[in-house]
Amino acid sequence: MRYALGVDLGATNARAGVVTPGGEVLYSERRATEAGRGGEHVLAVLADLVGSCLSRAPLKRAEIDGIGIGSPGVIDITTGTVVKATLNIPGWSGTPLKTALESAFGTGVYVDNDANVVALGEHTFGAAKGCDDFVCVTLGSGVGGCIFVDGKIRRGRQRAAGHIGHMSVDSAGRLCNCGRVGCLEQYASAWAVGQRARARVAAGDRSLIARKAGGDPDRVDAKLVFEAAREGDPLALAIASEVARAVAQVLADIVNLLDPELIVIGGGVAQAGDDLIARIRQELETASKVGVEPPPVVPARLGEDAGILGGAALVFGGFR
Amino acid sequence: MRYALGVDLGATNARAGVVTPGGEVLYSERRATEAGRGGEHVLAVLADLVGSCLSRAPLKRAEIDGIGIGSPGVIDITTGTVVKATLNIPGWSGTPLKTALESAFGTGVYVDNDANVVALGEHTFGAAKGCDDFVCVTLGSGVGGCIFVDGKIRRGRQRAAGHIGHMSVDSAGRLCNCGRVGCLEQYASAWAVGQRARARVAAGDRSLIARKAGGDPDRVDAKLVFEAAREGDPLALAIASEVARAVAQVLADIVNLLDPELIVIGGGVAQAGDDLIARIRQELETASKVGVEPPPVVPARLGEDAGILGGAALVFGGFR
Repeated sequence: MRYALGVDLGATNARAGVVTPGGEVLYSERRATEAGRGGEHVLAVLADLVGSCLSRAPLKRAEIDGIGIGSPGVIDITTGTVVKATLNIPGWSGTPLKTALESAFGTGVYVDNDANVVALGEHTFGAAKGCDDFVCVTLGSGVGGCIFVDGKIRRGRQRAAGHIGHMSVDSAGRLCNCGRVGCLEQYASAWAVGQRARARVAAGDRSLIARKAGGDPDRVDAKLVFEAAREGDPLALAIASEVARAVAQVLADIVNLLDPELIVIGGGVAQAGDDLIARIRQELETASKVGVEPPPVVPARLGEDAGILGGAALVFGGFR
Repeated sequence: MRYALGVDLGATNARAGVVTPGGEVLYSERRATEAGRGGEHVLAVLADLVGSCLSRAPLKRAEIDGIGIGSPGVIDITTGTVVKATLNIPGWSGTPLKTALESAFGTGVYVDNDANVVALGEHTFGAAKGCDDFVCVTLGSGVGGCIFVDGKIRRGRQRAAGHIGHMSVDSAGRLCNCGRVGCLEQYASAWAVGQRARARVAAGDRSLIARKAGGDPDRVDAKLVFEAAREGDPLALAIASEVARAVAQVLADIVNLLDPELIVIGGGVAQAGDDLIARIRQELETASKVGVEPPPVVPARLGEDAGILGGAALVFGGFR
């Protein structure tokens, strides 16, 4: 039997799992990333996590075809090095992930950007299986994206394609950390959703969100907001509508520009339920009236295993 | 010697020219399209124009490799039929351009969308020569676009990719004819530029624009606005800045999404001079701060011959 080890590195948690070529996750483990402690610490966490997975019975080391990792930041996929880190892991830039883990574990290591790996997972095992031309949007703590064109990940001149979270929905809107105004990430990330609700709760709002959080702004997060929305809370519904409108605004631009065959929405915010996908579909119909029919908009299928399965797909699919 | 006949069909004028494989336009002719008289009339105008070019000495009919046509609307490039016309030629939809002209002239006819043909011309003979990965924006009476990926024109699921003019720059902005709000075309087309200036002149504005037009709003057009801008007129400069900002806003979205190698700006508005391109570059630097360097932004090189040369490239390059 052949297996791959898929690793999903996030700023909060790192997860690794042993995956079969059919896309079954045999088992998985999780570690706290403690990104704030810096790049060297994160690399040590990863090595520990990988070592632990590889030593678990009944797996034999020789049966592992390789290790596939999705990491935040811009990745040089040839050298497997982090070229440019995102702000949430200090010192992550320059980390030679591939060579470090290959010498530690004696097996091939493949690295790509986390949003690309999630999309690759959906392409190989999930919602985009059989579709070589799609756009994947990941609504997580940030907003990521990936474009598949002719079965290949679109990379771009500086390996910076797919920055969907930094397409703008409002040129007079909120200032993004990146310096641009109105970036989607400021409207549709879990962070942005939580922030909006927290500000209201802190200001004495009495919505269901506040009640669920016991009036404590620090207990408000995106998950709680979407829970309240499903129960019909007006504030939560207004925030969910804002998310859907912002996502649809950017998707309408993408549809007019690329006319893709499929749009897949993944990430924790999307897992909040079909309600949000339905809202996005509805807003997209409104936003794209040029006579271009929007393509199907579907939820990602792999849930929180997307990164692990995508990592495994990096190994099984060979290097791209 | 081999030649191709390139045909550039616009709503106002149709032009055709005999082109060498090196990209020299040996001669060209022009007819008024009189689009308002409908699709059948336009087809007759085209046939007359092509016939006249083909019969001109010293050309022998046998030396023509084929006829390449850029037409407004969505084109089925396999059948050479207009699938979906733009509003400005009534009854153009359904016109079997390829078969009609092939049976009339006994030579191969190749048809594509006008914005694609302009981009193909720039790729073969102009500003994007040697670059297989670029975005071309055409600022004409409307705003068109074309995406080259891996040396091929990106077409999309419904052959509707490249609708850059219907990417939105302001979700609370101007209503577009297409039904969407804030489309680039409402800010950066020659029509929009003229409209903005005309409204001001009609309201009694005393800018250089008004003086150049003798106070007559009907004499105001985009060309006159850019002339006034070059002479330092504040109103004209404000309108030119608005154009540059709107174009840059969409280009920043495209850079974040696709990270292309090159951006080419063509069309009559762009021919207004390097000033506009310089302004667009500057605004793009401001709008794209995510750490993705904008690619070079260059003016199209082929000017008003772009359509003719692109039509010839359709013939010489073979069918794509």
